[in-house]
Amino acid sequence: MTRILGVVHDTRLQLADRYIPLFEDLAPELELRAPEDIDRPEDVRFMVTFLPADDAFSPYPEMRAVFSIGAGIDAIQACPSRPADLPIHRVEDPDQAQQMAGFCAFHVLWHHREMAAWMEARGRQAWERKLYGLSPLDKRIGVMGFGLMGRAIARGLAGLGYPVASYSRRAPEPEPGVTHYTEEGLDAFLGQSDILINVLPLTPQTQGMIGAETLAKLPQGAALIHIGRGGQVDEDALVAAIDSGHLSGASVDVFETEPLPEGHPLWTHPKVFVTPHIASIPVPANVVRGIRDRVLATYSD
Amino acid sequence: MTRILGVVHDTRLQLADRYIPLFEDLAPELELRAPEDIDRPEDVRFMVTFLPADDAFSPYPEMRAVFSIGAGIDAIQACPSRPADLPIHRVEDPDQAQQMAGFCAFHVLWHHREMAAWMEARGRQAWERKLYGLSPLDKRIGVMGFGLMGRAIARGLAGLGYPVASYSRRAPEPEPGVTHYTEEGLDAFLGQSDILINVLPLTPQTQGMIGAETLAKLPQGAALIHIGRGGQVDEDALVAAIDSGHLSGASVDVFETEPLPEGHPLWTHPKVFVTPHIASIPVPANVVRGIRDRVLATYSD
Repeated sequence: MTRILGVVHDTRLQLADRYIPLFEDLAPELELRAPEDIDRPEDVRFMVTFLPADDAFSPYPEMRAVFSIGAGIDAIQACPSRPADLPIHRVEDPDQAQQMAGFCAFHVLWHHREMAAWMEARGRQAWERKLYGLSPLDKRIGVMGFGLMGRAIARGLAGLGYPVASYSRRAPEPEPGVTHYTEEGLDAFLGQSDILINVLPLTPQTQGMIGAETLAKLPQGAALIHIGRGGQVDEDALVAAIDSGHLSGASVDVFETEPLPEGHPLWTHPKVFVTPHIASIPVPANVVRGIRDRVLATYSD
Repeated sequence: MTRILGVVHDTRLQLADRYIPLFEDLAPELELRAPEDIDRPEDVRFMVTFLPADDAFSPYPEMRAVFSIGAGIDAIQACPSRPADLPIHRVEDPDQAQQMAGFCAFHVLWHHREMAAWMEARGRQAWERKLYGLSPLDKRIGVMGFGLMGRAIARGLAGLGYPVASYSRRAPEPEPGVTHYTEEGLDAFLGQSDILINVLPLTPQTQGMIGAETLAKLPQGAALIHIGRGGQVDEDALVAAIDSGHLSGASVDVFETEPLPEGHPLWTHPKVFVTPHIASIPVPANVVRGIRDRVLATYSD
């Protein structure tokens, strides 16, 4: 049996170390090699990557597809050596979507139930009960971006009793119990989102989409949970909206610059819960199985 | 129309101030009065209370039922003046169950995703990513107590992808996706609960049930979320189990003594998330509607 040859390549993540053994175990019909171990570049049929170098695609004239090892494909789309007609596949890992759903449930409760205030009262050993606004019906959730992840987030929160609306440019398959808004309904969607969760993909349309103007359309006291991509939120505008009192706080997992630079105002803002881009990662075994199934179904010959 | 007369009484909560106006609005067939406004005690048919005084029931020879304004009825059960055959009704508020489900989802994620460690790293402005164990499949949840609340908690967590088991003395209606254990399966249930959620009612059987021996049966590194009733967990044993390294931490909302006394070790333990009995409260309007419906259906004559 001739195995279908692929190259694993990345500028920042050590993907070869992790993925070559996994392919050996889980995708025996495929063979994955690092670029330096490729003897005949014309035999390479697919690439596995996340952050490709500018010239990553140049050596391989017979490549049929490129696979992101994450849900994001923006760095691959921006790579200048990528042939314009080369299919790009993102990971669609239901486990990763569930990780996102849990992460969002945590942060919705963090803001809705004012958990930071309990932690502060606890530091003073103060038994101060505030018994209002505990019902999930008191916070309307808006999920911006409604692919595999957005849908899992919406389902998880609806299951906890929150009223959930969703937004994407085009109408998706309906989700029971979730009100969907499309492009012309964006202002109405924002106006009803007491907690806005951003999980949009990074595209030219979503770049910088959540700036001062968008944040101003949220209800007074709203909170933002930002787990999409760094370039989508204007971080200065976010800090200003919190400092003005219009927003009550934010949870931010992705940033314009990562790692988030020391001294950045988001690191120290008392109303912002910062995490280092850990809301979710695909389960590597699921990534490999997904690539294997797609390669065998589509690209074997 | 003669209205059915009830008395509202409590030693610590100002129930009269809150509930008399609500009954006027939502239960016009009933009339609720404070004890000092009762002219003819023999006309009183029901009591609304939570923490009754020892002699609370003595003046009312024709009482037909007592209604707790919460899910707990242990203080009413323990009241010496209560006639042994007087029916006690607890609140069954689906909204309160959803509050519990959200509160538990928060604390499950708090422990599973080690949110305290992110907050600590953030204080150092340290971008330290740990990318293992993010899948909800990595933490098995055990829900101890499986009434209205336990079921809502189990559903919410199963919806977020967690494997969920439940425990109660007798087998309940099955819940899809949830494995149930009864009395003889208690050890097996504990042995598979990476995160144990206690939401048992307080009864002679559950008093002190979660002590050193029970905690020792949890897997190494397990966490406890305690939202049942204060008397069920041996607090010294809990602190010892965390300090020994057997447990990784706890979230505690109910205590042997409330308010939790200043200087109590749970106030300051770095691995314990303390809240002042605020996991959930019934929505008062739902309480009133539930009492009204039951009084009219059962006790009117």
